[in-house]
Amino acid sequence: MSTEPIRTRVAIVGAGPAGLILSHLLADAGIESVVIDQRSREEIESTIRAGILEQGTVDLLTAIDPNTRVHTVGDRHDGIELRFQGEGHRIDFPGLVGRSVWLYPQHEVLKDMLALRVASGQDLRFGVTASRVEGIDTDRPRVIATDADGSELIIDADFVVGADGSRSVVRPAITGDSRSGYFREYPFAWFGILCEAPASADELIYSNSDNGFALISQRSPEVQRMYFQCEPDADPLAMSEAEIWETLQSRVPGTTLKEGPIFQRDVLRFRSFVAHELRRGRAALVGDAAHTVPPTGAKGMNLAIADVVLLSRALRALLGEGDDRLIDGYAELALKRIWKAQHFSWWMTSMLHQLPESGEFDRRRQLGELRSVTDSEAGRTYLAEAYTGWPLN
Amino acid sequence: MSTEPIRTRVAIVGAGPAGLILSHLLADAGIESVVIDQRSREEIESTIRAGILEQGTVDLLTAIDPNTRVHTVGDRHDGIELRFQGEGHRIDFPGLVGRSVWLYPQHEVLKDMLALRVASGQDLRFGVTASRVEGIDTDRPRVIATDADGSELIIDADFVVGADGSRSVVRPAITGDSRSGYFREYPFAWFGILCEAPASADELIYSNSDNGFALISQRSPEVQRMYFQCEPDADPLAMSEAEIWETLQSRVPGTTLKEGPIFQRDVLRFRSFVAHELRRGRAALVGDAAHTVPPTGAKGMNLAIADVVLLSRALRALLGEGDDRLIDGYAELALKRIWKAQHFSWWMTSMLHQLPESGEFDRRRQLGELRSVTDSEAGRTYLAEAYTGWPLN
Repeated sequence: MSTEPIRTRVAIVGAGPAGLILSHLLADAGIESVVIDQRSREEIESTIRAGILEQGTVDLLTAIDPNTRVHTVGDRHDGIELRFQGEGHRIDFPGLVGRSVWLYPQHEVLKDMLALRVASGQDLRFGVTASRVEGIDTDRPRVIATDADGSELIIDADFVVGADGSRSVVRPAITGDSRSGYFREYPFAWFGILCEAPASADELIYSNSDNGFALISQRSPEVQRMYFQCEPDADPLAMSEAEIWETLQSRVPGTTLKEGPIFQRDVLRFRSFVAHELRRGRAALVGDAAHTVPPTGAKGMNLAIADVVLLSRALRALLGEGDDRLIDGYAELALKRIWKAQHFSWWMTSMLHQLPESGEFDRRRQLGELRSVTDSEAGRTYLAEAYTGWPLN
Repeated sequence: MSTEPIRTRVAIVGAGPAGLILSHLLADAGIESVVIDQRSREEIESTIRAGILEQGTVDLLTAIDPNTRVHTVGDRHDGIELRFQGEGHRIDFPGLVGRSVWLYPQHEVLKDMLALRVASGQDLRFGVTASRVEGIDTDRPRVIATDADGSELIIDADFVVGADGSRSVVRPAITGDSRSGYFREYPFAWFGILCEAPASADELIYSNSDNGFALISQRSPEVQRMYFQCEPDADPLAMSEAEIWETLQSRVPGTTLKEGPIFQRDVLRFRSFVAHELRRGRAALVGDAAHTVPPTGAKGMNLAIADVVLLSRALRALLGEGDDRLIDGYAELALKRIWKAQHFSWWMTSMLHQLPESGEFDRRRQLGELRSVTDSEAGRTYLAEAYTGWPLN
């Protein structure tokens, strides 16, 4: 049994930060869209993921909603600490580049954006699973999906956007193959915990120690998020709380962590990925559907939003004025930032982790690199520029 | 048949730039020394090696001899070009860091220093091969050597310095083992040529191309030095001149090289090495005896001279005033610069070469890195600081 297709201008698959912000920017330009997501609204709002928002991301969220909770619930961070050989070296963001970052978890961004989009009357459909995309080489591409009841749902559009994450259903229509991309896997992962404890530091501490990497981060005054480098196949349940704290403490020599009950643990795999194609005909990819970065550089959500800014501009030109120059240039322009961000994420990763394949020479070279960067105002500035985010162009 | 030992304050093994400059700085402080080298003066003066002198090295040579030929025969370079994806990106040294480098081959430095030391009456013995060093844990270390006639020569000293290159005879006395060190080998080498041709560019071009790395460098208005990445076991004689030019041209897309007869070819292996110990008791290592860097960062001779500046100061305190604090801190202080230079040399190497083990992801990440560095004033400054040399401290 088939229903009448839904007709819209832009079909957006995925109600993550990228899809929701895109629908807002399009609506702002008078371009209506339909956003579908296979998850329920509750699931989306409870998907806890870290969030370091670049200055440009916060500027955009503030432009979208001047009362955004980023400025009240979120926490502005004016620096990070790089710690090695038992010493902390602060990277002073405003002092170096006049910018900051904000600690504001991704699910809070999602709550804000969902509330805004619903209030604006956005056609937003949860529990709808896209199965394939057709006709992207024509002017009338369509998304074939199944709704929560198992009924088929067809969205006829002028353009289809894949904002549907690393297992994107839109991607194969563009690249011809769901795994078609540039790929890199890392021989380690992060063991992450959430614990009830006061903050051990005001800012993030990225620690390179002889025992491996650790990241001391914050969630709220009462809840802290910490990570340490582990084997990729580590079992999150195999360690006792005492062993976890011992591991963490051993990796931030010179700092004493404030301990507390651990109520969540997970293992994050490290992958880098960039799809071979970001756009074909009347379809394009944004965010994790287009690329994955390891978490060390905190670039994931920010890069998704940078894609969306470029794509919204290209769709305004294409659908508003029939001008296809920006959409034809979308992939090339987006990829410039994406590869810089891929490099930055790889750089932070390789500078801070113990790499199993590296020997004593590389270990000391790595410390020489950390010293070169932290000794030099130019080195710190180069890092701060990337961490706080290159300007959205 | 044994001769009477020679008595001096500092026995310096090796009459390369490090040993000769050290003997000068010691003489300046009233500390006499004997310098021995297994080579003849003619051999030393004809060992052709590249030379990019950092600003600090030139400042030191100028302090030693205000009429140094660095400023007449040498050529000041105010930048280098990084070339990738067919585009050149200049790194403007004075504009970024107020410093420059000088192209002045190492054998010219050697000629200058030999002439100066001979004129000053330096005890300088050629054709003398050190065989071992003894007594470095006492106040009277000695060098046992053989002179050109095969007679044994013993130098009794207050201190012994190994400035005798990567196959140092002094090193095992300090580290306990001639190969004791941190080591890294690279899976490629440089194929170098000298040719009779006009310069293809005013400054060095470091080119990352899809066909591999090339470096276009200069020697004089009539003679050029160029290199391209090759297999480590490449046979310098296996290629025709036409094939060499074709290879070079293919690696600097966007530039047309001026060709001419090739009169020298060699293959330079890529190695990184730092000895486990730089000093023990009354002996210390400087220059290639202490460390080897791959040539990409042009750090070799400069790093040797930076060692010598530190060691000369430490020996003045030790031998002039009986103060051993500086000599006790020599290794740690020298190693800070050495590991930064090792990192810089590795960084330039890894950013510019095609690494056999890297895949398509890493190739694109590398281009993302080159773009990050060249797009950013901070990135260019960070590179320029290292290339022109951190201040001698």
